[in-house]
Amino acid sequence: MLNFEFHNPTRIVFGQDTTSSLHELVPRNARVLILYGGQSAERNGTLAEVRKALGDRTHYEFGGIEPNPTFETLTKAVGQVHARDIDFLLAIGGGSVIDGTKFVAAAAKYAGDPWHILETVGSVVQEALPFGAVLTLSATGSEMNFNAVVTRKATQTKAFFASPHVFPQFSILDPTKTYTLPPRQLANGVIDAFTHVVEQYLTYPVEARVQDRFAEGLLQTLIEIGPKVVHDPADYDSRANMMWAAAMTLNGLIGAGVPQDWATHLVGHELTALYGLDHARTLAIVLPSMLRVRREGKRAKLLQYAERVWHITTGSEDARIDLAIEKTRDFFESLDVGTHLSDYGIAADAIEGLVQQLQAHGMTQLGEHSDVTLETSREVFEASL
Amino acid sequence: MLNFEFHNPTRIVFGQDTTSSLHELVPRNARVLILYGGQSAERNGTLAEVRKALGDRTHYEFGGIEPNPTFETLTKAVGQVHARDIDFLLAIGGGSVIDGTKFVAAAAKYAGDPWHILETVGSVVQEALPFGAVLTLSATGSEMNFNAVVTRKATQTKAFFASPHVFPQFSILDPTKTYTLPPRQLANGVIDAFTHVVEQYLTYPVEARVQDRFAEGLLQTLIEIGPKVVHDPADYDSRANMMWAAAMTLNGLIGAGVPQDWATHLVGHELTALYGLDHARTLAIVLPSMLRVRREGKRAKLLQYAERVWHITTGSEDARIDLAIEKTRDFFESLDVGTHLSDYGIAADAIEGLVQQLQAHGMTQLGEHSDVTLETSREVFEASL
Repeated sequence: MLNFEFHNPTRIVFGQDTTSSLHELVPRNARVLILYGGQSAERNGTLAEVRKALGDRTHYEFGGIEPNPTFETLTKAVGQVHARDIDFLLAIGGGSVIDGTKFVAAAAKYAGDPWHILETVGSVVQEALPFGAVLTLSATGSEMNFNAVVTRKATQTKAFFASPHVFPQFSILDPTKTYTLPPRQLANGVIDAFTHVVEQYLTYPVEARVQDRFAEGLLQTLIEIGPKVVHDPADYDSRANMMWAAAMTLNGLIGAGVPQDWATHLVGHELTALYGLDHARTLAIVLPSMLRVRREGKRAKLLQYAERVWHITTGSEDARIDLAIEKTRDFFESLDVGTHLSDYGIAADAIEGLVQQLQAHGMTQLGEHSDVTLETSREVFEASL
Repeated sequence: MLNFEFHNPTRIVFGQDTTSSLHELVPRNARVLILYGGQSAERNGTLAEVRKALGDRTHYEFGGIEPNPTFETLTKAVGQVHARDIDFLLAIGGGSVIDGTKFVAAAAKYAGDPWHILETVGSVVQEALPFGAVLTLSATGSEMNFNAVVTRKATQTKAFFASPHVFPQFSILDPTKTYTLPPRQLANGVIDAFTHVVEQYLTYPVEARVQDRFAEGLLQTLIEIGPKVVHDPADYDSRANMMWAAAMTLNGLIGAGVPQDWATHLVGHELTALYGLDHARTLAIVLPSMLRVRREGKRAKLLQYAERVWHITTGSEDARIDLAIEKTRDFFESLDVGTHLSDYGIAADAIEGLVQQLQAHGMTQLGEHSDVTLETSREVFEASL
């Protein structure tokens, strides 16, 4: 096991009918800005519940945070914070709204140009407004970590920041809030959570037995519940397990003391940037090929994955690995998500442009061994046609 | 899944040579009281390391905290805190020293008779001194929770308290600190951790798939590493996995959103009280019989335990359950721990006294269904001869 630090102070309030606990969780005298995305928060009644739970606390609302939250929109929210003398933020939504709220929390307390927060990872954020979240979509794990991704609309730059000052103080996880989501978003959430785990698990063994077992448990859970989450609109148990599993995938727990990969995410980003594919769909395309192309470096863990997650115990090593990768692909497809570039109308002539983008963004040494070169990524794209 | 709250703000610093990080973790201007148990902290060099890491911070030392920390001893430490104007505590040891430090932290800030803290669960503690821990023995999970057990020597009363004000601010977990422990303490630690998991897992199913998988992963890990932990004095990997697994067993994670049992612990306490048996040995005696006697109420989970933890997939339901219990017993015995009362010179004529003690302590409705009556406990003792 590698040395590590683990620290996660976010309070989770989990279960049906828990939104009313805002009444206890938000400070009595807080001046609150509620941040949310589209009209669904209003339509499904969550905003009304939140307003009621806040009681006579002064509160304002800021809607319209985009699926990939933009610096431009969030900067307007920071303006609201200052104009209204806000001292507590409340995010109502999924990963995008929570990521956006983290940025607003940090930017509101930052004296310089807030874009610096996104250029300089973590280090410039010295304080942030306190905030909580009411989760309405499970996928990114933002409800229980201190990471955020923000896009600068003007230049289409996706930027990342992380700071321990932007852990949510609390997150309310009510699985029934996800009942009204469309299947496409639900499938994206399952694939996003699944790939988060794989990026922290499928590297090379370091005798981190607890982390491995936890990762395998999360993968097995997602495999068991995934199809039900997507196809069964109001099944409490599968939505509850999805919500708790997704929070566990990126809260630091399974990534503590182990090597991490993240090449699938970084290679996938270029598909979003050039072709506008949903983030999760890029993962569904890239991950199976990435595992196939990098099988030597990942051999020991791929065999463990085959045995423990897919119960594949017979056949040659390579046959077991092939079958495990095939089952991974089948699982994604069972959620009605295409796993080939051709499913999205992208053909071989796109690969050169994608590789050039990777080069332009400095993505030339990815993965747990820094050995995912541009040539490796090219192979991955070719294997994904 | 049952509704739940989860909150655990303790910072974990894990790995070899991490004690020096005290330099960063303890506030610069702190006036520190170091609390420890016997002479081993001095002998194995941990105290010297701690003193060095504290640098020029003012610090005092208080040794002699017992294996079952007593109210009487801890009250003296509280006196030191007040006399020396201490504002930060540092526990060097295992569960007993950390439990004791939690009590000192709360008592030092409590205006009334500190025994009230132990009589009235949680509610009277409104604040506590901040503290950290350097763990030297893995077993109780005290390094990452807010529970403590303290014994009043005068009356031999074991009392429990819990308060979110006594989470350690940080715990340093260096597996090499456990290299010099005797096999008896190591075996106790493994059994203690194993039984913690079972008390939160082997109840009845509530569709808490993540918690079940995590619990099963911890049990499998303990089974894999247990014999090596006990018999191999300086194996980093097994000690590291033991240390991280033990912290995970009682930090709120696997117990969130599930029913809990704890009858084995409460019944076992009487064996410690009347016959002075190590806590873990009482668990090794009681647990297999408890599972056997209560097989109907636990049937579904026992079958899941048999399949997922012990890979038992053939035979009748009862045969599978019997085999799983037998393997549990064999596992404890493989750590050189007796699992029968007779191994400790306790015979059938002791049972009446033990049952009377349970009655005297109000232990008449234990377990996840409150159906462990005195008659059930009597059966358990009889099955443990």
